[in-house]
Amino acid sequence: MNFKELKREVFEANLELVNRGLVIYTLGNVSQVDRNAGIMAIKPSGVSYSDMKADDMVLVDMENNVVEGTMRPSSDTKTHTHLYRHFDNIGGVTHTHSTYATAWAQAKQAIPCFGTTHADFAHGEIPCTGELTNEQITRDYEEETGVQITDTYKDRNPIETPMVVVAGHAPFTWGKDGAQSVYHAVVLEEIARMAYLTRTLNPHSELLKQEVADKHYLRKHGKNAYYGQS
Amino acid sequence: MNFKELKREVFEANLELVNRGLVIYTLGNVSQVDRNAGIMAIKPSGVSYSDMKADDMVLVDMENNVVEGTMRPSSDTKTHTHLYRHFDNIGGVTHTHSTYATAWAQAKQAIPCFGTTHADFAHGEIPCTGELTNEQITRDYEEETGVQITDTYKDRNPIETPMVVVAGHAPFTWGKDGAQSVYHAVVLEEIARMAYLTRTLNPHSELLKQEVADKHYLRKHGKNAYYGQS
Amino acid sequence: MNFKELKREVFEANLELVNRGLVIYTLGNVSQVDRNAGIMAIKPSGVSYSDMKADDMVLVDMENNVVEGTMRPSSDTKTHTHLYRHFDNIGGVTHTHSTYATAWAQAKQAIPCFGTTHADFAHGEIPCTGELTNEQITRDYEEETGVQITDTYKDRNPIETPMVVVAGHAPFTWGKDGAQSVYHAVVLEEIARMAYLTRTLNPHSELLKQEVADKHYLRKHGKNAYYGQS
Amino acid sequence: MNFKELKREVFEANLELVNRGLVIYTLGNVSQVDRNAGIMAIKPSGVSYSDMKADDMVLVDMENNVVEGTMRPSSDTKTHTHLYRHFDNIGGVTHTHSTYATAWAQAKQAIPCFGTTHADFAHGEIPCTGELTNEQITRDYEEETGVQITDTYKDRNPIETPMVVVAGHAPFTWGKDGAQSVYHAVVLEEIARMAYLTRTLNPHSELLKQEVADKHYLRKHGKNAYYGQS
Repeated sequence: MNFKELKREVFEANLELVNRGLVIYTLGNVSQVDRNAGIMAIKPSGVSYSDMKADDMVLVDMENNVVEGTMRPSSDTKTHTHLYRHFDNIGGVTHTHSTYATAWAQAKQAIPCFGTTHADFAHGEIPCTGELTNEQITRDYEEETGVQITDTYKDRNPIETPMVVVAGHAPFTWGKDGAQSVYHAVVLEEIARMAYLTRTLNPHSELLKQEVADKHYLRKHGKNAYYGQS
Repeated sequence: MNFKELKREVFEANLELVNRGLVIYTLGNVSQVDRNAGIMAIKPSGVSYSDMKADDMVLVDMENNVVEGTMRPSSDTKTHTHLYRHFDNIGGVTHTHSTYATAWAQAKQAIPCFGTTHADFAHGEIPCTGELTNEQITRDYEEETGVQITDTYKDRNPIETPMVVVAGHAPFTWGKDGAQSVYHAVVLEEIARMAYLTRTLNPHSELLKQEVADKHYLRKHGKNAYYGQS
Repeated sequence: MNFKELKREVFEANLELVNRGLVIYTLGNVSQVDRNAGIMAIKPSGVSYSDMKADDMVLVDMENNVVEGTMRPSSDTKTHTHLYRHFDNIGGVTHTHSTYATAWAQAKQAIPCFGTTHADFAHGEIPCTGELTNEQITRDYEEETGVQITDTYKDRNPIETPMVVVAGHAPFTWGKDGAQSVYHAVVLEEIARMAYLTRTLNPHSELLKQEVADKHYLRKHGKNAYYGQS
Repeated sequence: MNFKELKREVFEANLELVNRGLVIYTLGNVSQVDRNAGIMAIKPSGVSYSDMKADDMVLVDMENNVVEGTMRPSSDTKTHTHLYRHFDNIGGVTHTHSTYATAWAQAKQAIPCFGTTHADFAHGEIPCTGELTNEQITRDYEEETGVQITDTYKDRNPIETPMVVVAGHAPFTWGKDGAQSVYHAVVLEEIARMAYLTRTLNPHSELLKQEVADKHYLRKHGKNAYYGQS
């Protein structure tokens, strides 16, 4: 894939965020990486979705240097590159402040697996990161937001749980490319909403039985998956 | 009705799910049965609603053999055929993960009859199934999801209560054809939402008086029904 | 106004219910009365809003006799005529099952006046009726639903509080004509939603100070009203 | 800027309120001031958004005298001019009854800063005013609503927290012009919604750490801001 195509895909993935109702104004961003080139395309910072063109996407290397583009990249750029450097098998990252996922982030609680909708997309709870120390905030805030996430995944598989809520902040999701990371952002918001309703309907709601969770996850993702056409 | 017509009706019923806002991506499916032929048409598995054509609907017999179609049928196929085999008088089945109905399913609670909106469409509570045993999950998950439902209806009339929430999973609804099963899915989501609000507004809300529930159900469904034009 | 015009206005008021998102399928109805003729136009029972034409509206006299129209009138017809017979100064009635107002009805609670949005449209709480006795249900259900409402207004002014929730059922609103009764139905749903959020945010939320409630009601409705252009 | 242009901008800002889903019917108003001329343009009172034209905007001086326009200005005019007279650096004011912000106003609670979405737009909690005394209500209700707000900002910077909820009433927001005050109204509604969900998900949710709140506010607003393209 050449960079022109990369920028077009990232542009379209960013617009999809708006079409799905996940962002208001400029509160979200999607990136996609070209692993061979070590180059990521990402939305420019604070630019309105309606004014944005494919060519406005900014190309950035894995050390956060702008290699093409006249605009400043998203202020969350360092979080994106951090995730690409630490999660080997991901190709796209999405950050939103979608309402229900953000509520869980603000409540500083992992999203429990209450049902099969959740189990279809994430294996186990959707974790909530720890909080940043004051030292981290001062040092390099956006980089350390990435650290918050990768610390949370020390004993987790980012492919099996491609979504996280950052404590006091908002969700990040990822996938094989930008489009799939947006797909996961949409699904996360719905999972977060269902979990909110489940919890407030009955504060003592129990987790989905582990065996059902495994079954659902594996029918979509395991080597014996039988969901879909492939 | 020939199979071409059957497939078109099932196709349209599936699209109606999207138009009514009940499903995101591919998280839902509708089927309709031709009782004489013993053939059901159902949505293919994991295919995007925007790409889908009427001709993509898959024809399956009551033992889950594909009799026509190039795609794999919905992964929930065995649940659908199970319902057709056990509920004599139904002609269509809908499965969604609609938000509020799923919240009740995840909270593993039946939806109490709090008002006449509920009573107009379902006689008595909308039941929540029991949970699957580990043996059931291993044996044949989708078939056993059907068993969960039919077990719940051992002492219930599926025509009088054409909707159920499956514990830890999501709702299934049915009707005389695919279109009516979608209609019941839409209505169930609204009933589930109202019941959620009623319960959280006042955790001690009482059930609708049985006499009013009977009156409302019967003015629409009894032999002396006087709602509508027929 | 001739009956053709009356039917057109009632038709449009019914469509406005759909456009405002207050009803799904056929779950609502609007009527308007010609006081001189003693004739009310009302939506036919159970007819889809998309199929309905102005000419399908049914004309009914104050004793519930159909005087024009080939369809059966709304099954709630007797409640409408009851209200016209007992509330002298109203010209239109709307019945919906709008979500939040219905939740208050199902919780069998009056909607407290928590703020100026409420006070702008209703003076004091929006009452919840008592429950029907078994005798009333058997006798004449729809007529008695009207009695439930008028009993609730024995010491209330229906013009100052043009909206009510019927216990275990749903809201009714009224106004100078069909269009204004729809306007009140839309406003009631928003008031009901705000009150739900206020109550669940803080179960001990206090009522709006009576002096502010009076001020707001009177700046819109009193003889010294100064809101709007007239 | 001439007055024709001022009126057009205020007109468009008012329509934006509708497009963003913040108001129903006529329940909101936006103004913008020309500081040199001491003239504010504001929406006329009680006029439907669909009928309204740019030329219908009313010009009012800082003592609430209409200087141009055939219609009566918004009934909240005195609150707007009060804010312009007391907050030196604002150019636009928006008043809505948006649902979630109004719920906080009705619960008479400040909106706590639970996360970075909030911190990006408001430094510290979004305050709730005190209640009006009976004397204030009788004296000059709309002027005193302004006093409620400016009293609340005695020790607050209105530029750093450009949004407030008025106890028992609804929100006011402001900005450098009418358009930015609408932007803040939209953002406030989303912040209020997230805070509602956070609080009801976990009544003991803690505030965002002050250091993160400062960091987020300053990356957008401080002299070393690095969000956006300027």
